[in-house]
Formats: sequence, structure tokens, C-alpha cells
Amino acid sequence: MSSSLDPNQGGDEKKKTYHKQATGLARKTVQAHSTESSLKLYGSCFCPFVHRVWISLEHKQLQYEYVEVDVYRKPKLLLDINPRGLVPALRHGDWGCYESTVLMEYLEDLGGDVALLPKDPKVRAHSRLWSDHINRHIIPVFYRYLQAQEAKDQASFAKELTEQIATLVTAADETGPFFLGEDMTFVDVQIAPWVIRLEKVLKPYRGWPEPDPGSRWEKWVRAIEGNEAVKNTTSDDQLYFDSYERYAENRPNTSQVREAINSGRGLP
Amino acid sequence: MSSSLDPNQGGDEKKKTYHKQATGLARKTVQAHSTESSLKLYGSCFCPFVHRVWISLEHKQLQYEYVEVDVYRKPKLLLDINPRGLVPALRHGDWGCYESTVLMEYLEDLGGDVALLPKDPKVRAHSRLWSDHINRHIIPVFYRYLQAQEAKDQASFAKELTEQIATLVTAADETGPFFLGEDMTFVDVQIAPWVIRLEKVLKPYRGWPEPDPGSRWEKWVRAIEGNEAVKNTTSDDQLYFDSYERYAENRPNTSQVREAINSGRGLP
Repeated sequence: MSSSLDPNQGGDEKKKTYHKQATGLARKTVQAHSTESSLKLYGSCFCPFVHRVWISLEHKQLQYEYVEVDVYRKPKLLLDINPRGLVPALRHGDWGCYESTVLMEYLEDLGGDVALLPKDPKVRAHSRLWSDHINRHIIPVFYRYLQAQEAKDQASFAKELTEQIATLVTAADETGPFFLGEDMTFVDVQIAPWVIRLEKVLKPYRGWPEPDPGSRWEKWVRAIEGNEAVKNTTSDDQLYFDSYERYAENRPNTSQVREAINSGRGLP
Repeated sequence: MSSSLDPNQGGDEKKKTYHKQATGLARKTVQAHSTESSLKLYGSCFCPFVHRVWISLEHKQLQYEYVEVDVYRKPKLLLDINPRGLVPALRHGDWGCYESTVLMEYLEDLGGDVALLPKDPKVRAHSRLWSDHINRHIIPVFYRYLQAQEAKDQASFAKELTEQIATLVTAADETGPFFLGEDMTFVDVQIAPWVIRLEKVLKPYRGWPEPDPGSRWEKWVRAIEGNEAVKNTTSDDQLYFDSYERYAENRPNTSQVREAINSGRGLP
């Protein structure tokens, strides 16, 4: 594909665009899950919503096939699941579905040895309540911050993101290191891809600071970064730095997420 | 409370404001659930998000106490659950939670004879996917439409609302009358309060039309309107007409929902 044809570079071939193949440990995981399976994850290696489902599959040690999708050249099996071809999508036999949180609930409902949602209805509700906080009050602010071009707006979104994360931390188990305690569960996986991208995207592009030493948030971040399922689905730093340049420059045609944020709508 | 002090009337005592007590069949249901119970629903009679949880409780025939909350004078037991005192909130023993979809999932997880989510993981995922469509693509447009003051904007939002409902209908069981078939389930309860308010609010204020005769949507609307749990939690028409005047006039201080829609943010 000649770079002049790539809408993500806005006609400038020096501009970086999204990667179409995982690197580092994530590349090894793709290779280990390249054989045909009835459970298929359609994903794009840089996408944080895909990352959630991928971490869930790895953490649960399920048998699955990873199918890398170029979001501008969508395979028919993906379009069968949803005409817009959104990723992440799961295909299980002849059935398919999409939306990362819905897919994480689906994997829970399948059962198996490793659960992300405990059995106690109250703890499940607590987990869903704070997943909702992440989806509605943290992730949109992450993108507003990354896409903001004016220093004043960037400062305002940095403050809001810090506050929304602080609110989440007050709801977490006091000792941790994860949201509910010793084990990684639903809320941790919901926020994990953005924890990774705070470090690998917001830090280089916006100067996002390291967590305060000794804070509960630092303990949580280190636990997420050190988790095997997270590590094995994370590419090398360059992949994220390159793939998010178009967001950081707020380039047209970047993605449906960018357009939704710019138009003041919720995430697509 | 003297009307001149009510911020919802904007200093004009001829303006209508929200009702603080259910009427009609809903009033009878409030009275039947006024005795102390360990499971309490904190709600406001006009609020559609409360309506969802209330319909779920009635449909499941659970024992519960209904506590009417004036959103401008919040009781301490509600503020204990969440400092912002959002309704709907459930208190169960010494534990509490909020957010209508989270609370509906909680009631599912409690078990009991009447389930809104079937056991099959694929059908559960399908239900959650389309509940998400309602929450992200139908409800915000309902409020944008109701709050829009210019004819051009109203026409545009009417079209968008019609299209988003049509998309939902394509995902429903062909025969119905409900989303999954003969019985009312999760998706039906998620949209039911807005089906009621299309008729009782959008019709008088914006000329929202009756469903096309003989259409799948008409069949669905009539099934929801005729359901016992829906009927028993619905007040007389006047309550909705009065309570939504402030939205239809897009008056300041109407609610957090209004402010969020006006500022181009997602729902609070």
C-alpha cells in the first residue's frame, strides 16, 4: 500500500500511521494463536478495546484464534458479524458479537476455571459500576486530552483525567494491588489497556507523569503492567507511539473514536 | 415549598415542574410497597432510569420498599450510597449501589423465578449488545430531540431517533412481540420507560407519531404498554407532561441529564 494512498497520513508520507502487525511479546502470542479455532478474536494490534478482550482470553487461558484486521480492509467474516466491521469482534462457531464490555461478559458467562467477576452479586455490581465509570468518565477524557491541541485545553483535560482516576482509586480495595485485592478481575482488565497507553502514549505526547511513588495508584499500575496476560498482549513501545500520532495531531480520518470525541458525542 | 423558590420553574410560578408523588396505578404500587424492607429502591416517580429498575422489581415479583426521593432534598441513606445522591439507587441490607443497568444486572444475579436474561451466553450477549445500543444511540437522541428549540434541529433529531429505533427493531425476534419473543426480557425493560415517554412526552411536545400500523415496532410498543409490570409503575399522563416541560423548554437547572446533553458530553 503506497503511503500516499493512506488516509491516515493525510497525504504526508513522513507522518506515522497505525501498525498492522503486533510486535514484541504480543507478536509471539499472535503466532501461538494463529491456528484455526471455533473461537476467533478479530482485532487490531494497537486498539485498546481489542486489548481488553485479548487480555481476558489470555488470562482465562482459553483456546482461541487471533485474527489481525486492517480496519480499512475488513474481512467478510467480520462484516457478517456487524456491517460496520467494528473490532473487537468475537466469532464463536457460526455466531458473532462485538463491543468489548459485552464480549468480556460473554467470556464470563462461558464459565471455565478463571473468573473475572466473582460469584457474589454485590461484588459483581460493584465491578460493573466502576467499569461504567471507566467507560464514561475516564476513557472519553483520555481521548479529549490526547486530541486537544491547545495548551489550555490540555491542562484542563489532564486535571479532569487525574480526578476521574482518583475517584476510581477511592473505590478500590485499600490494600490491592488490584481493584478487588490480590487477583486481577474485571475492572482491572477494563482499564488495563489505558494504563498501558498512559505510559506509552500520553507520557511521550502530553507529558503524563509517573504515578506518585508509594501511592495506591502506583501499586495498581505496577500490578497491571506486571500481569502475564497484559504483558503477553502488549507490543513494543514504538507501535503505540506510531499508532497514536494521528490522535495526538487530531488528524482527520483517524478513527470513529476521534470523530465522536470531536463532535461531542459519546464513543461509537 | 413556595413555587418562587423552585429553581425548576426559573422564577415563573406558572411554569410546571416535576411531580414528587406518583399518580394512577403507580401510586397504588407505591402504597403496596411502603412498608420497611431490606431491599429498598430510591427513586423519583418521573425518572425513566428509576422506571427500569422499578419495572424489573415488579416483573420479578420481589419484595421491596419504594422510597420516593425529591432530587433536590436527598435523604441521608441515599447519600450514603453515593455522595451525588443519584437515583435510581438500591439499598440491600447495609450495602448499596446505583446506575440503572448495573442494578438490573444485580437483580438478575440475585436469582429467583423470573429471569430477564436467559441462561444461554449468546442470548445474554445479544441482549447486552442491544441494551448498549439503547443507552448510547437511542436515549441521548431522545433528550437532544426533546431539548432542541430550533425546528431544523428537531427535524434532524427526529430522523436520527427514528433510524436508531429502526436499527434496534432489525435485531429483534421477527415474530415478537417482545425483543426475544413471547416474554418481556432485559432489552424490553431497558427501553420501556422511553417507549412510555415517546407517547406521553415526545408526542405532545414534539408531535412524535404513532408507530406505523401493522409494523413490528407497533407490535412491540403495544406489548410493552400492555405489560402488567410496566402498567403498574406508570403514572397518569399529566405527571409526565408536567415533569418534562422543563426539558422541552430546555430550562436551566433542569437536571444533570439536560446539562450533559447541552455540553455535548455523554449521560451523567
